Amino acid sequence: MSSSTPDTITLPWASDFHCHLRQGAMMELVVPLVEQGGVRTVLAMPNLTPPLTTTQMAVDYGQRLQALAPSVHFVLTLYLNPDLTPEEIGRAAAAGITAVKMYPSGVTTNSEWGVADLRAYYPTFAAMQDANMVLCLHGECPSDADKGICILNAEERFLDTLRELHAAFPRLRIVLEHATTRAAVDCVKSLGSTVGCTITAHHLVLTVDDWAGQPHHFCKPVAKFPSDRAALRDVVASGHPRFFLGSDSAPHLLSAKQGERPAAGVFTTPVLIPLLATLFEKLGCLSRLEGFVSAHGRSFYQLPQPAAGSAAITLTRAAPLKVPRAYAVDCSPADAGSQPVTVVPFMAGTELAWSIAST
Amino acid sequence: MSSSTPDTITLPWASDFHCHLRQGAMMELVVPLVEQGGVRTVLAMPNLTPPLTTTQMAVDYGQRLQALAPSVHFVLTLYLNPDLTPEEIGRAAAAGITAVKMYPSGVTTNSEWGVADLRAYYPTFAAMQDANMVLCLHGECPSDADKGICILNAEERFLDTLRELHAAFPRLRIVLEHATTRAAVDCVKSLGSTVGCTITAHHLVLTVDDWAGQPHHFCKPVAKFPSDRAALRDVVASGHPRFFLGSDSAPHLLSAKQGERPAAGVFTTPVLIPLLATLFEKLGCLSRLEGFVSAHGRSFYQLPQPAAGSAAITLTRAAPLKVPRAYAVDCSPADAGSQPVTVVPFMAGTELAWSIAST
Repeated sequence: MSSSTPDTITLPWASDFHCHLRQGAMMELVVPLVEQGGVRTVLAMPNLTPPLTTTQMAVDYGQRLQALAPSVHFVLTLYLNPDLTPEEIGRAAAAGITAVKMYPSGVTTNSEWGVADLRAYYPTFAAMQDANMVLCLHGECPSDADKGICILNAEERFLDTLRELHAAFPRLRIVLEHATTRAAVDCVKSLGSTVGCTITAHHLVLTVDDWAGQPHHFCKPVAKFPSDRAALRDVVASGHPRFFLGSDSAPHLLSAKQGERPAAGVFTTPVLIPLLATLFEKLGCLSRLEGFVSAHGRSFYQLPQPAAGSAAITLTRAAPLKVPRAYAVDCSPADAGSQPVTVVPFMAGTELAWSIAST
Repeated sequence: MSSSTPDTITLPWASDFHCHLRQGAMMELVVPLVEQGGVRTVLAMPNLTPPLTTTQMAVDYGQRLQALAPSVHFVLTLYLNPDLTPEEIGRAAAAGITAVKMYPSGVTTNSEWGVADLRAYYPTFAAMQDANMVLCLHGECPSDADKGICILNAEERFLDTLRELHAAFPRLRIVLEHATTRAAVDCVKSLGSTVGCTITAHHLVLTVDDWAGQPHHFCKPVAKFPSDRAALRDVVASGHPRFFLGSDSAPHLLSAKQGERPAAGVFTTPVLIPLLATLFEKLGCLSRLEGFVSAHGRSFYQLPQPAAGSAAITLTRAAPLKVPRAYAVDCSPADAGSQPVTVVPFMAGTELAWSIAST
């Protein structure tokens, strides 16, 4: 440690522009943990069961979330689907819904992501552009061995689609979510001011070696080569204003993570900002933390920046944070098979250098 | 199916030049299954606990194996280690031990695989060359993020070492084991007649997508890109005489495969030749099966080719082979935690087009 490293850092409450808050018992566990992780603005993903496909569904979900965490600002989203006509986009914007999320599987049925299919949504994207909504992209092509596409190059193969969308809708704000590759970072940097990019905490930590044989580190997109991780680290260390936090925190029951077919997802919500502080310090870019977890994303999403003197969090290195081994979920055993009904967080059982002082 | 496809195929008993036969209860389960899979010559890997580091240990292990499967020819190996002096190599050769296996972790301690370390074994390799022994290589560099090395490029990064060894010991027979990449295939093809290469059954089937989130498909080296799998398929379909079967069948208890840290290994032994017949047929190269599973490897290892009229196996498509969901291991529950004490084979629960007719 350099002697110039501070022992406390004061930050505005952070903003997480990609989070899976789930529903039912998992939602009841996770939503109160958002604030514990240092976040008070959170973009809630719409991939529930059933997915949030209409304005009314998203509004109702927002109310359920708000009841669980009155201090948190929930940024609401819709799942891109054929019912999102230009008229429905107008209703969604009027209801305060911020973004629409596009998943590859939501674009085509039993088929590859292709320009022909994407163009079917161009009227929707035009309406979103006019309504100043944001398009969030899960930027991966479906795997197709005959075309040489697998989970390792699925993101890179998607980038032409991103370029094409940006060219067709230059005023539409587009977020390439959970970037994992040097190719994605370079592509986003090369594009205009309406294209942003989220980076997760765990992709700043992991490479392919860390999820091979470690299902609690398995997520989609998968962590890739060391050179890719280096590109993610470099761009956050550079303070690039169009790169910002989207944790993609995605809790699953332990029983779903350890078994024959482990589910994809890493759960970072409860320790998110201490984890990032610890990591940024290791990377020598602690000064970039506030931009990454607050200013950049709020600017891209056109949310007000925190006013001077507004509520803040204090990170301290006086008390290391012991990450819990698991969080109990209040659901019936039938939901979880024979395993304990818990969720295991990222870095479970380890110690983080920074914690949030009580506020 | 083309109408020209035969309904039966007669093959010599097959040879598997890379197999983990284990010890204790697992050995007692696995060894009798070798013949069930269509194999009567099997190279037994030395990575036991403790590893087989001396001639006497390997000879004793061979006797234990032979007692369990009297009809099988066991090809014995030693684990490369500092005790394998030129004198010990002489004793090993005299005792009928065929090969020495080099693992990256057996070459250096807490360090990378490097030329400096490798050269410490040059007197051993010279003695092996003189004694006409075979050097089996686990051809991967240890991961090192600072050098950009991870499990995806660890094999390709190793190839310079292979080239260097072959140049230094041109008469030493060297096997690059369980090749998984186009780079490895191209490298072996480019080298001389003393360099062979084994390919597993499962690497002809899997890509990275198949082991991500599927621990029963997780093995080391990991399966890689579709283009890599295509290179493996192409070289076996071409009938190249220096590429042959080494299954790397590696059974683990189910409890070790499904959990927090799944073990690496795929268990193909009990269905090996029916699996390969089914696969070669799909790839349109059934005519190459005999070379791959018998002639090529026996030639490289300088074992006699089967005499005309000698014992053979008959594969038939009259009775598809239902792969068992699991095999029971006769060990105490304490060895296996709370999970059932079983081993799950590759393709468990599926049906293979070809089976071995009773002989």
